[in-house]
Amino acid sequence: MKTTGYFDHAATTFPSIKALERYRSAALEYWANPSTRYPEGRKSHAYLETMRDSIAKMLDVRPNHIIFTSGATEANDIVFQSLLLRLSPGEVIISGIEHSSIIQQQRALEQTGWKVIMLKAPHGFVDPKDLAKALTPKTRLVSIMSLNNAVGTLQDIPALTGIVREYEKTTGRAIHFHTDATQQLGKLPIDLLSWDVDSASFGAHKFHGPKGVGFLYNTFQGVENLSKGGGQEAGMRGGTENLAGIASMEAALAEALANQKRVTEHVTRLNDLFRQTLKSHVTVLTQREHSSPYIITVSTALPAEVMVRMLIERGFSVSAGSACSSNARAKGQRVLEMMEVTPEHRGGAIRISFSDSNTEEETVSLARAINTVAKETV
Amino acid sequence: MKTTGYFDHAATTFPSIKALERYRSAALEYWANPSTRYPEGRKSHAYLETMRDSIAKMLDVRPNHIIFTSGATEANDIVFQSLLLRLSPGEVIISGIEHSSIIQQQRALEQTGWKVIMLKAPHGFVDPKDLAKALTPKTRLVSIMSLNNAVGTLQDIPALTGIVREYEKTTGRAIHFHTDATQQLGKLPIDLLSWDVDSASFGAHKFHGPKGVGFLYNTFQGVENLSKGGGQEAGMRGGTENLAGIASMEAALAEALANQKRVTEHVTRLNDLFRQTLKSHVTVLTQREHSSPYIITVSTALPAEVMVRMLIERGFSVSAGSACSSNARAKGQRVLEMMEVTPEHRGGAIRISFSDSNTEEETVSLARAINTVAKETV
Repeated sequence: MKTTGYFDHAATTFPSIKALERYRSAALEYWANPSTRYPEGRKSHAYLETMRDSIAKMLDVRPNHIIFTSGATEANDIVFQSLLLRLSPGEVIISGIEHSSIIQQQRALEQTGWKVIMLKAPHGFVDPKDLAKALTPKTRLVSIMSLNNAVGTLQDIPALTGIVREYEKTTGRAIHFHTDATQQLGKLPIDLLSWDVDSASFGAHKFHGPKGVGFLYNTFQGVENLSKGGGQEAGMRGGTENLAGIASMEAALAEALANQKRVTEHVTRLNDLFRQTLKSHVTVLTQREHSSPYIITVSTALPAEVMVRMLIERGFSVSAGSACSSNARAKGQRVLEMMEVTPEHRGGAIRISFSDSNTEEETVSLARAINTVAKETV
Repeated sequence: MKTTGYFDHAATTFPSIKALERYRSAALEYWANPSTRYPEGRKSHAYLETMRDSIAKMLDVRPNHIIFTSGATEANDIVFQSLLLRLSPGEVIISGIEHSSIIQQQRALEQTGWKVIMLKAPHGFVDPKDLAKALTPKTRLVSIMSLNNAVGTLQDIPALTGIVREYEKTTGRAIHFHTDATQQLGKLPIDLLSWDVDSASFGAHKFHGPKGVGFLYNTFQGVENLSKGGGQEAGMRGGTENLAGIASMEAALAEALANQKRVTEHVTRLNDLFRQTLKSHVTVLTQREHSSPYIITVSTALPAEVMVRMLIERGFSVSAGSACSSNARAKGQRVLEMMEVTPEHRGGAIRISFSDSNTEEETVSLARAINTVAKETV
């Protein structure tokens, strides 16, 4: 695994060797279908529940609130598509800086009569006052990501859920609060109970686990999956369980949480060093306070694609925009627009995201390369 | 991996060692996100397309008609949920012996104004004449599985698509023909082009590949995914690609197809031996002609759960009903009812499914155990 010069860990990152070993051992030992009654199946079922218990314990939540999925996209889908089964449509509030897997829900919702309200996020933060104004008696779902993938800003989730819980008292009707916390788990602390969210989405590959596996934390009784398949996961998610992938995710999460403090300190040093090394002709779009140290977005006068290409030529792998989707640039632009970043800064925005594997030396080199390319080319 | 006495390979089967090795090597070498532009990402993207090309070649179809998913359930979902995005509802025809991941689509469809017509399948076969009668100018989708998971019957897909293609000429409007061919791939020949289907679903774990991976073959322009995520798979399936899983599936499929003729001959011998060994107080529900040799369903006067439990005590792993879902019995019952199996035979139906790992000796032992248990206990 070559990781030198790689600064796009928020898109995806290298796999944990421990997690890969777990994948193999679980695939060989627990290959039988957990839904069956014979010894091989019961053994798989017990192992599946051990994995669920362990992940629930790491998050300090109840095991029956963990639903395994094929990733964060599917976890988001379950919550949003559940609305399509409701007998009468209502309103959904999302932030304008959500991941595209949330933004794209708008179309099916609107087609079935739902109204989707999109909140701006100046400088990358949703103002609780804006959320308060958007709530109506028809609001059924609020979805605001805890850690933005494009710029790294952290929302004050308890303040936002607090607004919703207060409003619920006036109508007597529950509002589902969902958060996409995919970029946070295994990197920064998460406290789902004190956040007071009803559901949250996670993908294993963001914390060095396998791709194609994730989970939905869900406590909201009204949620049901549009796709029930064979009724697995207590009717919440169909398809034969990817037990090897789930076990591999559990190993990766345990490892990430064990290393979390150390790695956070490391990337905070890298982030500081990176900021200090940048010259004044490079604009930092991610403010230091209330943002993840793992992600920093900067802008220069060069179009982002040109900057990315020139950095690639110098051995650095970074992305324009959110980068974990096929037409990342358009999506990154939307996020920056909703953050009220000026058009001149939007066009030149590139994202750098750190991990344990990055060194101080290559971080300084990257900052210097950005300085040089931005200066020489203008 | 202990596989002795295991006769539930249609639920799931043991993993291919080659496929597991491929998982590891691909996860280590191609961990970067295929949607990115830097060298690591381009390398992943090229590998993803190599895997797609290879699978397409094995099926003799075009690579852009292969959409990777988290399994057959999701592949079925894409086709059915696509209807929810249509501006006006129409009619869907399915067989009553479909897998539960198809049957469960009925609710969301009916809630959005669609009509679902369910065809009976006497003895496990859909009569093309019944399909002809069910077609109306409002028919938009026909979905009939090629190989039934509960009893192993094979439909005459070209005859069924022929009926639909003829009908299309009278209305001038295309009807989507989908088939769930999950139980067939890697076991018996499949010719999607001569079948003349528009789409087909496949899951890797049925042919010794990884769980949590599958694909949709799709040629129908009207299909779009309700969940687009980040726009991966040409906008047809969201979420960062599970490249290691996809590569592992490719290795498993290549291996299964290379062994297909030999394994089919082997399980045909086992199937014949099993039938010959059964005594007359055991009723075989799967007719030998036009059925897969990999699956055989038999019924005794004992309730299926009792028979399954007593066989487990004797070291045999079999299932009542379709067995690849959590409440398999109810679902197996529905399939048998739609097959017009008499109530007395429905209650005692158990499914035996073979693989390469089963021996003649253990097959004869299983048949004898069923004979003995059925006789002693009545």
